[in-house]
Amino acid sequence: MIKAGIIGATGYTGAELVRILSRHPQVEVVALTSRSYAGEDMAAVYPALTGYTNLPCEDLTPEEVLERTEVVFIALPHGHAVPVAARALEKGVRVIDLGADLRFREAKTYEEWYKVPHANPELAAHAVYGLPEIYREAVRRARVVANPGCYPTSVILGLAPLLKAGYIDPATIIIDAKSGVSGAGREAKVTSLFVECNENINPYGVAGHRHTPEIEQELSALAGMEVKVSFTPHLLPISRGILSTMYATLARTATEAELRQVYQDFYAGEPFVHLLPPGRWPHTRWVYGSNNCYINLAVDGRTGRVVVASAIDNLTKGAAGQAVQNFNLMCGFPETMALATPGLCP
Amino acid sequence: MIKAGIIGATGYTGAELVRILSRHPQVEVVALTSRSYAGEDMAAVYPALTGYTNLPCEDLTPEEVLERTEVVFIALPHGHAVPVAARALEKGVRVIDLGADLRFREAKTYEEWYKVPHANPELAAHAVYGLPEIYREAVRRARVVANPGCYPTSVILGLAPLLKAGYIDPATIIIDAKSGVSGAGREAKVTSLFVECNENINPYGVAGHRHTPEIEQELSALAGMEVKVSFTPHLLPISRGILSTMYATLARTATEAELRQVYQDFYAGEPFVHLLPPGRWPHTRWVYGSNNCYINLAVDGRTGRVVVASAIDNLTKGAAGQAVQNFNLMCGFPETMALATPGLCP
Amino acid sequence: MIKAGIIGATGYTGAELVRILSRHPQVEVVALTSRSYAGEDMAAVYPALTGYTNLPCEDLTPEEVLERTEVVFIALPHGHAVPVAARALEKGVRVIDLGADLRFREAKTYEEWYKVPHANPELAAHAVYGLPEIYREAVRRARVVANPGCYPTSVILGLAPLLKAGYIDPATIIIDAKSGVSGAGREAKVTSLFVECNENINPYGVAGHRHTPEIEQELSALAGMEVKVSFTPHLLPISRGILSTMYATLARTATEAELRQVYQDFYAGEPFVHLLPPGRWPHTRWVYGSNNCYINLAVDGRTGRVVVASAIDNLTKGAAGQAVQNFNLMCGFPETMALATPGLCP
Amino acid sequence: MIKAGIIGATGYTGAELVRILSRHPQVEVVALTSRSYAGEDMAAVYPALTGYTNLPCEDLTPEEVLERTEVVFIALPHGHAVPVAARALEKGVRVIDLGADLRFREAKTYEEWYKVPHANPELAAHAVYGLPEIYREAVRRARVVANPGCYPTSVILGLAPLLKAGYIDPATIIIDAKSGVSGAGREAKVTSLFVECNENINPYGVAGHRHTPEIEQELSALAGMEVKVSFTPHLLPISRGILSTMYATLARTATEAELRQVYQDFYAGEPFVHLLPPGRWPHTRWVYGSNNCYINLAVDGRTGRVVVASAIDNLTKGAAGQAVQNFNLMCGFPETMALATPGLCP
Repeated sequence: MIKAGIIGATGYTGAELVRILSRHPQVEVVALTSRSYAGEDMAAVYPALTGYTNLPCEDLTPEEVLERTEVVFIALPHGHAVPVAARALEKGVRVIDLGADLRFREAKTYEEWYKVPHANPELAAHAVYGLPEIYREAVRRARVVANPGCYPTSVILGLAPLLKAGYIDPATIIIDAKSGVSGAGREAKVTSLFVECNENINPYGVAGHRHTPEIEQELSALAGMEVKVSFTPHLLPISRGILSTMYATLARTATEAELRQVYQDFYAGEPFVHLLPPGRWPHTRWVYGSNNCYINLAVDGRTGRVVVASAIDNLTKGAAGQAVQNFNLMCGFPETMALATPGLCP
Repeated sequence: MIKAGIIGATGYTGAELVRILSRHPQVEVVALTSRSYAGEDMAAVYPALTGYTNLPCEDLTPEEVLERTEVVFIALPHGHAVPVAARALEKGVRVIDLGADLRFREAKTYEEWYKVPHANPELAAHAVYGLPEIYREAVRRARVVANPGCYPTSVILGLAPLLKAGYIDPATIIIDAKSGVSGAGREAKVTSLFVECNENINPYGVAGHRHTPEIEQELSALAGMEVKVSFTPHLLPISRGILSTMYATLARTATEAELRQVYQDFYAGEPFVHLLPPGRWPHTRWVYGSNNCYINLAVDGRTGRVVVASAIDNLTKGAAGQAVQNFNLMCGFPETMALATPGLCP
Repeated sequence: MIKAGIIGATGYTGAELVRILSRHPQVEVVALTSRSYAGEDMAAVYPALTGYTNLPCEDLTPEEVLERTEVVFIALPHGHAVPVAARALEKGVRVIDLGADLRFREAKTYEEWYKVPHANPELAAHAVYGLPEIYREAVRRARVVANPGCYPTSVILGLAPLLKAGYIDPATIIIDAKSGVSGAGREAKVTSLFVECNENINPYGVAGHRHTPEIEQELSALAGMEVKVSFTPHLLPISRGILSTMYATLARTATEAELRQVYQDFYAGEPFVHLLPPGRWPHTRWVYGSNNCYINLAVDGRTGRVVVASAIDNLTKGAAGQAVQNFNLMCGFPETMALATPGLCP
Repeated sequence: MIKAGIIGATGYTGAELVRILSRHPQVEVVALTSRSYAGEDMAAVYPALTGYTNLPCEDLTPEEVLERTEVVFIALPHGHAVPVAARALEKGVRVIDLGADLRFREAKTYEEWYKVPHANPELAAHAVYGLPEIYREAVRRARVVANPGCYPTSVILGLAPLLKAGYIDPATIIIDAKSGVSGAGREAKVTSLFVECNENINPYGVAGHRHTPEIEQELSALAGMEVKVSFTPHLLPISRGILSTMYATLARTATEAELRQVYQDFYAGEPFVHLLPPGRWPHTRWVYGSNNCYINLAVDGRTGRVVVASAIDNLTKGAAGQAVQNFNLMCGFPETMALATPGLCP
């Protein structure tokens, strides 16, 4: 039994961690921290957890959390994870950070897009980007994992096989992504109100969303050259789910069957990533609440482009589920432990 | 390992059974029947099940199903379960029927409300009404279980403690219930279309819904006298969930605290039924995808009435989850096996 | 052309007033006040109004607004309207207050339920309760109109004919009401977030909602005796719409046809209130964005009760539309001016 | 007063026509045809129209409709409009066809994508493509108007200024479009059920949707060269609304300000098309129920691309509203008659 803590437990990602870990046979969650809800039971803040956790939310210092735990999940706004992670490393507590602080190999990329100085570039360089389908072995050995962003997870999994095998021209990649509202967190703000989101779709962060450099860092690594993408996120009237629809020009002639084989090979044996049969395009509700990523693709002979669509649950494979997947790898547990459930559908 | 079959597997209830049973360590599902989708893989009909079932949908005769199985779940429209159940009984295959055919002790009640003759009144009299919180011991010994309707489950669990203890006047019960659209099944009909249900609520079946006599049968048994209720269902723009709000005049003076104790005692040790703390009224999303039932109540001193609200997921505790709960009891497994998960929330 | 101002223009009710008045041929809106959005154009705050208003939001004093206007609509939180209304009365500016401050004939009822002292009981006694179907002639002559609450509008219109004609026992009235989220206003709070409201229904304010005394005041006046009701509101995942389902025991035997005739007579000639044909129960989306109220009823012979359902759009007939209806009456315009549009459906 | 008929009145587009025409002061609707609902009142099929139409749905022959009318709106599935339109032309009845039959200048394009022979290529060549912002003068003189598809309307309005002025490379256009479910019509089919669409987004018709050639025909005309596009539609859990997000590589260096000016000039004086201010990206709910089209754009200096987003209501500007706009032009009425209403928002 591993003793784990969640720092920032009362956001949606924190609650999803508690939900998933409640069925993990090898974890004992021993600390839930929260400023806003300190003193309340977690099950009072999230009544769906009634009977699945007896823990209170506490306003603990990092030091207090690290005293109790062997692994900490950090679910804080960007900028707050670095000191906690650094101290954890010193104390031998393993870290899975669900924020952006440690995702960039180059601190200056972070600084450019997040508009704040990076507190510890060395630590960032040391952290492993926690996308198991790409970095599984590194994750197994990691002391500090930077859990990927939700959009990047859906995009990288969708494009990796094509980029790696050189089938597409990296200069032509366009990503049109759509996310449910839980991605905006539980903060009380007008733009997340039911009435503002319902019966609506809108683009946001056009040509400037902070997930762009994270996507580009990883796609560049896969392509072996610098990749710049057009990335446009949209807000959808759903609670959970991300669909990324991606377009690129084929770098060489290829049939759809050939590309399908590339995906089959790339993801052979992967427990969570599924290329769907021809014509069955991903629906986000098929992965609702699960750690799965569903992908499909088509070659458009008329335009010489390939279209790829990839669906995940932003809170699960896009955040807490992937964090537990990384946790399992770091601890030597079966990778699917606590995660082997189908999407809740219908 | 018990070999189980699902007759009528491609409706929403059937799919929910497959989802739940996919994580049941003591069940092997060996037959899924469907007319509409015969020959297709279940995972093609419900792609969320990709990786969790390899079974095809087959257009099997009951006899063929019974050959393969030790337990059958029947998820057919009313009127079709009786011959299957009768034959199963002869062959020693245990039956859990999720339809209405076997829920009534008096066949004439069924005939009056469902407007068809009952094919086998004797069998109906023999079946156990599968609400474990009321009939647990009988379910354990049952060969044929009539799984309760979704609305009746929410209503009976909400009112049982008060009726049993004689706190309310049975002549004054009013039930205002609200259900998600999955309760209408997967049949292609205009009234279930997205555009017809979205941004809407409407009453239906006013003063004539078929769950009325089922509710009355069970409330009468609890009250020890004939009970007639006003029952009005409403259609909500949600996929899953039932909320029943219930009103009754107190038969004798009682404080809220006193009534809360009655519920605590009645449901002491129940794994799925939770009385929430004062003021925390049930939200259906808190039980989303779970087998839980959340209840709360208030005494209104101004009117001398008690108000009770009860929330379940209509496909889980209101159908497939409760069926698996009954299955566990019938087979001697722990009652919560495959069902011990919190609601998917947020 | 009447010069009108809206005090508190950037809440949902204020925006709905601007929308409706934008098509009113006899009104010139000359002032929109807002603290939060002072200096911004109204069309920047509500881009749907682009091309329909050029006004900025201004942080004006009441005095400044009254200088410019002949009529003011007040859409402020309770407690803030009284001084504005009093001053308007002195200056000869007519007032339509959409809040609760002036709805109660007895200031002590207000004080008891709103937990604040009433600033001007005399003014409240002077104001006309602006439900035109009941108080049309008084509204025509009014200088100050207290626009009814959204729930009370749906309830009073639904029960008035029966109470007035003495068909139901006033001691048995139970009201189960359901509202869209816009009723909670545009304030940024966690309970109004998309993720908290979506795929959900929950009761709130059980046995204590502030619309209860308003309902009781008006039902008592109709019944000619003191009426106390059980009133339970629920929050629905829709933007607009209220459905009230109401139950009462018949005070004397009556057929449904007889009761239907009572409604037909009561609402004969009413432009906005429609009794639907037998069996066609109101859907809130049928009145979406319109000033209509749709009603239906059934007599339940088994229980001796009548069930009535009434649907309105909470922002239109439940607030801004009714305010314009009152405005039309006060100014001598045709009552339906700017309001004669069907619900936006599908 | 023009006598008008609607052939195929009970689909969503037909109902929207009735809704809009109910407030048109120069139209008398005299015929509503329907097979499925013949004999029922239109207000029974769409109760939101109660009080706004007294017409029954009739199973009339085209000849019978043409006898009564001066203009007919045809809202039938593709393949059925041609004979009606041809006969109308002979009888001097003007035609606005909301289907695809007459949208293509080349019948063989139609035949290739719709997989059926075209019944009257000459008539198709004769029809005017009814996008007033591009073909206003031709529409004024037209006897037969082919009302554009919903997706093409949003796309063409979004890209026309850039293509016309030669700012983008036509070979690089990628269109990622998202539509509400009403676009799928009122047909009872599983894929349009609430439970199948709710909490979901999915692509469909990838690299093969029938609106592709219609988009290409019009973009080619604007560009003065053959244009092929990647067009991917998606299904959204909203009733109404289309958002098209479009990407293209700049053909020459241009600032965002320069491009904004191009749009301002192109749409100067247009009553329905609005370029929003910088950074205010279109939300579909802002045009809900209105005939407006909201557009915004950004230049992405990093990639050399321009991103354009365009929002309409698919039933209004994307179908019935645009049809009435064309009707107004054909009849010499003010173009905005019956259409000058803001979006219903909140």
